[in-house]
Amino acid sequence: MTRPTLRVAMLGCGNVGSDVARILLRDGEELEQRIGARLELAGVAVRRLDRARNVDLDPSLVTTDAHALVTRDDIDIVVEVIGGIEPARGLILAALEAGKSVVTANKALLAEDGAVLSEAAEKAGRDLYFEAAVAGAIPIVRPLRDSLAGDHVRRVLGIVNGTTNYILDAMTTTGAGFSEALETAQELGYAEADPTADVEGFDAASKAAILASLAFHTRVTGANVYREGISEVSSADIRSASEMGCVVKLLAICERIDTPSGPAVSARVHPAMIPDSHPLASVHQAFNAVFVESDAAGELMFYGPGAGGPPTASAVMGDLMSVARHRLQGVRGPAESTHAQAEVLDIGRARTRYHIAIDVDDKPGVLATVAQAFSEHGVSIRTVRQEGRGDDAQLVVVTHEADDAALSATVRGLHDLAMVRDISSVMRVEGAVRSE
Amino acid sequence: MTRPTLRVAMLGCGNVGSDVARILLRDGEELEQRIGARLELAGVAVRRLDRARNVDLDPSLVTTDAHALVTRDDIDIVVEVIGGIEPARGLILAALEAGKSVVTANKALLAEDGAVLSEAAEKAGRDLYFEAAVAGAIPIVRPLRDSLAGDHVRRVLGIVNGTTNYILDAMTTTGAGFSEALETAQELGYAEADPTADVEGFDAASKAAILASLAFHTRVTGANVYREGISEVSSADIRSASEMGCVVKLLAICERIDTPSGPAVSARVHPAMIPDSHPLASVHQAFNAVFVESDAAGELMFYGPGAGGPPTASAVMGDLMSVARHRLQGVRGPAESTHAQAEVLDIGRARTRYHIAIDVDDKPGVLATVAQAFSEHGVSIRTVRQEGRGDDAQLVVVTHEADDAALSATVRGLHDLAMVRDISSVMRVEGAVRSE
Repeated sequence: MTRPTLRVAMLGCGNVGSDVARILLRDGEELEQRIGARLELAGVAVRRLDRARNVDLDPSLVTTDAHALVTRDDIDIVVEVIGGIEPARGLILAALEAGKSVVTANKALLAEDGAVLSEAAEKAGRDLYFEAAVAGAIPIVRPLRDSLAGDHVRRVLGIVNGTTNYILDAMTTTGAGFSEALETAQELGYAEADPTADVEGFDAASKAAILASLAFHTRVTGANVYREGISEVSSADIRSASEMGCVVKLLAICERIDTPSGPAVSARVHPAMIPDSHPLASVHQAFNAVFVESDAAGELMFYGPGAGGPPTASAVMGDLMSVARHRLQGVRGPAESTHAQAEVLDIGRARTRYHIAIDVDDKPGVLATVAQAFSEHGVSIRTVRQEGRGDDAQLVVVTHEADDAALSATVRGLHDLAMVRDISSVMRVEGAVRSE
Repeated sequence: MTRPTLRVAMLGCGNVGSDVARILLRDGEELEQRIGARLELAGVAVRRLDRARNVDLDPSLVTTDAHALVTRDDIDIVVEVIGGIEPARGLILAALEAGKSVVTANKALLAEDGAVLSEAAEKAGRDLYFEAAVAGAIPIVRPLRDSLAGDHVRRVLGIVNGTTNYILDAMTTTGAGFSEALETAQELGYAEADPTADVEGFDAASKAAILASLAFHTRVTGANVYREGISEVSSADIRSASEMGCVVKLLAICERIDTPSGPAVSARVHPAMIPDSHPLASVHQAFNAVFVESDAAGELMFYGPGAGGPPTASAVMGDLMSVARHRLQGVRGPAESTHAQAEVLDIGRARTRYHIAIDVDDKPGVLATVAQAFSEHGVSIRTVRQEGRGDDAQLVVVTHEADDAALSATVRGLHDLAMVRDISSVMRVEGAVRSE
């Protein structure tokens, strides 16, 4: 029996691309057995022909004319692993218009322009699959889109950036400060020379937008995501967290919030303290994990390597196999459903809790005055710990849950108090749900 | 626009069934928006009409004639949540023959007769989906079947039985013995009055068979799975584990083993010591988790509630939504591929390590004699710890990896030595892979 052949064009041949190419070339027979069709690597578009690559490619497959490749008549599926907005965006749209199915790992593009891409895919009747765009090898797109399709997701908490998790984990285990930990991460290849996209939370914000869109059946873009990076996290914050049985993680938090005018969603990325007992607390080094709370399933967690050539290639290959199956059947696979069109709330309306360390004059009445500043904004204090240190003292306050706007207004109010010398640490506290 | 309607028949209306019914009745509109078709609960087959249920069903939907229901012309999809072999088996086969798609949570049946059911589904051109059969709400079937479809799974380590994890966790945290912990589990509803299926590993063995079939693209049945329960696990074993920085878990272990005659697989369920640092070690109470090692993705873990009405219903609903999409498109979704037809190895050929605590006479030459017993069977010792206690002593030996047959022959050989008074603990050690 002759099996059909599906022809794959790949855009980009860096780390991920060369691993995808290697798997296609090495495991061709095995993959053919699994789906009943041959996957042929029919072309690879690169920027420079003369660059050394980690995979032996037949030179006749390699081209610099990406546009010609993705619109070539014999191509069935396009794999985009260039990254960035352009030319990836134009090439994906051209591929879909030409009737190709697309697999992409491009989180930045999806977070910025997911709606346009997804409409183009629908119009073309083709798949646009992107498991590799969030948390590398960890299957999270499929579980959110398919496995939980009959459930209601309430909240997604993700450690979705390996670089920042590596840095925070190093600060926690070695006591190093941020700059020192960043340098080590750069030396070991966990952080790039320009670490801005990771360290300032842009990468995590893109992933938060994708996760929120999937989880809540609505369209959330990167611009909708509140974002704070980890460059301001100090050793004192880490110690403070440790004293209250917590660790500091950079979290992508996507929540469904019921408002008087209907269900809304919130998506934010910022450092937060989470209790040691939370499953996300034991995610070390550059690993990623996504914790999902849903009405029926309860608490689920998905853990694994969030980046790297082979893990990302594994996710691309999984999508490629699914998309290939759909091509053979002449159908589209399940796509994001964005029918809900829920309002995306401002960070001020997110419900959270704050940990605030305040250096104050050590004299009578200080606690009462500080407590008053909280209650003025309707913020209720959960615990307060007071420590004298000579003529000044430190108050460590953890609040109950309140609107972020009220909490940040409280912090501004504290700054104005005469007896407050400094606010040495302000951080949100997340994930303490079960026993409260 | 009028949307199409798909009619769902449900077999069984216990815990899981009533939660599925409740979701279908309550969230009908929302689910319709997500897939573009209405899912109508068109009939529910039960054993006794007069039994109280946790869901308000229109009495006209309820019948005791399950066979008539699954073959009714207007039914599109059958959800089987009866459990057990018969009548579930006959009803599923009748449903598939009658052209219905099937969603089932029935691990025992799939482990015993998966090949027959899967052939029937293929012949009928319909889906047979079973995410709920392994690890409750945790999406693991889809990730193994679809997300990792382009990767090679090397090993699956699963905590797939909540009852035994609850008991072992209680023994670890409270120091209770097995019987005491079992009693507590029964009082709290974590263990059944007759706990055999859980405690002796039958339930976990069914799940191991399903996981191995999916992971290695070959057919493994429950009968192929080596099985040891936890009823022989003692407080001394738990303490011994703790002394070497380990915890005891009941693991379902599925491995790909390369043999001279080609790739083979092994599937086994038994208590094992795993290092505290292993992600599975922090799976507490009745939670489940599945740890997957693959060539490209590396190490992944999937964590969540492994049982209970709502979590299992969440998994059933996810399958129901997928199967409904396929019905609308007139296609089958991806099914297990079992083309590999790999040999399933006997436990004797599995590679593992043993922890053995031996009570010996405390006299010179004992260690040499014991060491000789290991080397006679080609088993290499990794660590040995000797503790004198009056006129006798205890040797705690941890071996390097060896064939299970050689390890168990070594234990038999030790029993025959005159200076060996007792072998107080024998347990396999798993999961210590990274730093070795």
